[in-house]
Amino acid sequence: MDYMAFTKMSYGVYVVTSWADGGRPTGCTANSAMQVTSEPATIAVRINHDNFTNECIKNSGMFALNILGENSKPLIIGTFGFRSGRDFDKFAEAPEVKSFLPVVDDCIAHITCKVIDTMESETHTVFLGEVTGAEVLKEDAPMTYAYYHNVIKGKSPKNAPTYIKE
Amino acid sequence: MDYMAFTKMSYGVYVVTSWADGGRPTGCTANSAMQVTSEPATIAVRINHDNFTNECIKNSGMFALNILGENSKPLIIGTFGFRSGRDFDKFAEAPEVKSFLPVVDDCIAHITCKVIDTMESETHTVFLGEVTGAEVLKEDAPMTYAYYHNVIKGKSPKNAPTYIKE
Repeated sequence: MDYMAFTKMSYGVYVVTSWADGGRPTGCTANSAMQVTSEPATIAVRINHDNFTNECIKNSGMFALNILGENSKPLIIGTFGFRSGRDFDKFAEAPEVKSFLPVVDDCIAHITCKVIDTMESETHTVFLGEVTGAEVLKEDAPMTYAYYHNVIKGKSPKNAPTYIKE
Repeated sequence: MDYMAFTKMSYGVYVVTSWADGGRPTGCTANSAMQVTSEPATIAVRINHDNFTNECIKNSGMFALNILGENSKPLIIGTFGFRSGRDFDKFAEAPEVKSFLPVVDDCIAHITCKVIDTMESETHTVFLGEVTGAEVLKEDAPMTYAYYHNVIKGKSPKNAPTYIKE
């Protein structure tokens, strides 16, 4: 089995946000999200069991998909991708919190969802969310995972299934 | 709700293949696939209920994800994306069939999977497959869905959730 085959799949770069207990917003980076149906609109995202955001989505039943653009601040990826929100307020360093769901301000679009189904695997949960809101914030090319690796020279967090040991 | 937000998600371009009854290979195009876990490696793909490939995957319990490159023949997308395999042998026009699972020859990599879980939605099934084989076939940039739209000027089949009425 050639694991390099997995690196040929194309992804975007996202921050998936949710509410922690007590109404504190939190989130983590993700590269995998896909629209599953158009009518009603649903979105699937995949989150590692070890990510604090996973339990926050399970508890709150909600998540938002924040779509980063090529010109979104790289700081966002560092803040949301390489620290845990369990004991750290990622939003304090970052963006505005909108009232309906925590969303990251410096993204090109966000889609808010109510969880309607989940699929479990050994290490990750796939959440299926029915879209409750969607907004385009700015015109910028969506950041692809390839762009993140090749242009920004970013790395994969260890919890990502696409992480490859160096 | 601004449906344009959905167009900001990044995807690749794939042909998902499987066995039809009687051992005939078939398949359809897809833009959504994601690795869910790395150990054991699993892949999720999303296929419309109306696609013949959906029932073939359910019946055979297997699928292969064929990853197209920027230089893969556009004919493949036409053959697999805009006709039904129900009464048409897509492989007759196209590629070699390998013995372990139908795979499209002119792709940059393929990943073969055994279905281990499914998640249903109104119009599409998300299949979770445990990887049984993975192979890189050639060096070429993976075709992104944006490249397909912007450079090849391709359209979305009507069964794709990303299809937008003109």
